[in-house]
Amino acid sequence: MATDSILYQEIHQQPDVIATLSRGGHGPAKKLAAQIRESDIRQVVIAARGTSDNAARYAQYLFGAINRLPVALTTPSLFSLYQQPPLFAPDTLVLGISQSGQSPDIVSVLAEGRRQGCVTAAITNFEESPLAEQADHLIGLGAGEERSIAATKTYTAQLFAVSLLSAHLSEDPEYLAVLDKAPDLVRQTLALNISIEGLAERYRYVRNCVVVGRGFNYSTAFEIALKLKELTYTLAEPYSSADFLHGPVSLIEPAFPVIVVAPNGVLKPDLESFVGQLRSMDAELLCVSNVDVILEMGRTRFPFPDAPEWLSPLLAIIPGQLFALFLAAARDFDPDRPRGLQKVTETL
Amino acid sequence: MATDSILYQEIHQQPDVIATLSRGGHGPAKKLAAQIRESDIRQVVIAARGTSDNAARYAQYLFGAINRLPVALTTPSLFSLYQQPPLFAPDTLVLGISQSGQSPDIVSVLAEGRRQGCVTAAITNFEESPLAEQADHLIGLGAGEERSIAATKTYTAQLFAVSLLSAHLSEDPEYLAVLDKAPDLVRQTLALNISIEGLAERYRYVRNCVVVGRGFNYSTAFEIALKLKELTYTLAEPYSSADFLHGPVSLIEPAFPVIVVAPNGVLKPDLESFVGQLRSMDAELLCVSNVDVILEMGRTRFPFPDAPEWLSPLLAIIPGQLFALFLAAARDFDPDRPRGLQKVTETL
Repeated sequence: MATDSILYQEIHQQPDVIATLSRGGHGPAKKLAAQIRESDIRQVVIAARGTSDNAARYAQYLFGAINRLPVALTTPSLFSLYQQPPLFAPDTLVLGISQSGQSPDIVSVLAEGRRQGCVTAAITNFEESPLAEQADHLIGLGAGEERSIAATKTYTAQLFAVSLLSAHLSEDPEYLAVLDKAPDLVRQTLALNISIEGLAERYRYVRNCVVVGRGFNYSTAFEIALKLKELTYTLAEPYSSADFLHGPVSLIEPAFPVIVVAPNGVLKPDLESFVGQLRSMDAELLCVSNVDVILEMGRTRFPFPDAPEWLSPLLAIIPGQLFALFLAAARDFDPDRPRGLQKVTETL
Repeated sequence: MATDSILYQEIHQQPDVIATLSRGGHGPAKKLAAQIRESDIRQVVIAARGTSDNAARYAQYLFGAINRLPVALTTPSLFSLYQQPPLFAPDTLVLGISQSGQSPDIVSVLAEGRRQGCVTAAITNFEESPLAEQADHLIGLGAGEERSIAATKTYTAQLFAVSLLSAHLSEDPEYLAVLDKAPDLVRQTLALNISIEGLAERYRYVRNCVVVGRGFNYSTAFEIALKLKELTYTLAEPYSSADFLHGPVSLIEPAFPVIVVAPNGVLKPDLESFVGQLRSMDAELLCVSNVDVILEMGRTRFPFPDAPEWLSPLLAIIPGQLFALFLAAARDFDPDRPRGLQKVTETL
């Protein structure tokens, strides 16, 4: 039974994990924010892979839009394999994001950042890891052991850690107040999506799909696609709605499944017209949204509660996690044992 | 007939386009390199979409490894839709890459960079475009009109423009001398792959594949995947070999097609073992390589000539372009008229 799986349990631990991090994470986030101001940091370089790289994508938009800090997602192979790392400007923060803190290529970026004299920081679930050792500042996730191979609670914890840092950088009390509501919003999202088990059956034989998101939820599109690949072996490709129109839109034919992440906010008019365009092409639309008019255009609807757009990635991923879990079950795959994967992937 | 298409002609114009740019591009590249030194530029932010974004990926590795300049691929929506652009450090070069120089989101990044007082530059085929207007420095591609919707000659011209800039930044005569050989190497690559028309038939009914590359050729993986999507409607997803092992490897089942871009160089041992691993999983391997032992592991082989690894993306893309063209023809699609696309895509 899918509901007996460790993955199901860990997905449902998320409100508590966020609540715990909401208590313990402010201190380290505030300290790192103070260091960023003190060292007059002008840009952030992030090293991450897999699910953690999707949290990095969120950070790129959040730090950019809220804190107006440019963020670069770096290329670990220049540090590890090529051994020709770029030289960072001294006002650069080098940040590693990793569940395990183990992958040598990610560790090598922080080690090099430190060697060059930059401020380094890590966001990880393992406070004793090689990554944490290379970091001047550490935001531990405190998510408890994640036993499923597919990361869920550590992903939302990473997003939340990133938003804690951004909020303390902004020093905006309104922004900090919104974060207090996060555990409850995560709980509401789980409650709104209890019917996903029944919805997954329809997609039993889907081999391919695309997942579209933009802005803050570009990260969500990547992470939903990754969960679908890991757990259900669906070839799910993530896109920004803008990049999608620069070529891949030619893939769309009637019944082609497209998952669209479309929150309320700045992007709403853009995404509403995008969803309308796909609908006119007879795509099969699965809408992850908190906007009624967009949800109603979906053949399948994954609602989440009203929230500021910048916080929506923390919520919008949850129906994606549940959908991947129940689709794996509909295909008689074991969600706790995806083929070909281990929990800690070490790449050079 | 595929060989009567405009696309076929433009693919075969590439040696001449590179030769032309090799004559005309040194001046502007040298001037921009001098400005980068004079302004003590410490990082580069690139704005690009679609094929041009793949040229930007190449620039990220090339500027990083050869010139040790950190490169960030920026998020245009923060500039256009959100109107909350990051504040660039003053030692940042803002570079736009675009075939047409028209897309408003890309133009908005350069306009903002200029407003903030940064040095701006553009690489485009249209020297009178809105993008060029916002640029202090311009490297024109001089590729002639590109009539096919799928970009080919402007992509390799963009790669070459990027390598001209990198070479002039390095001021290394050996590096500059290698560039002189580029037109001939491109010509040799076309000659080595005249049999692709016959090889494409085997893949007539492929619906999905993945394209794997790493380091300098991460760009090639993305660009081959994009050509396959645009021209053949194959759901082709690009990966770095490292990211692939962090999850998507679970997609692999016997006969699953994997295109691997594996040049000679630093990555060879890594990629050789990766190809061996896929082979032991009975994947259908299509190898783009200039290493015999790797080519021989491929069920289908796309050779290219010996070259320094940093130059190999200019060559490795060419069999990918030809394969996409002939696979489109094998499916009775018109390679000059992909469905749902226009030549200039304007996104906000």
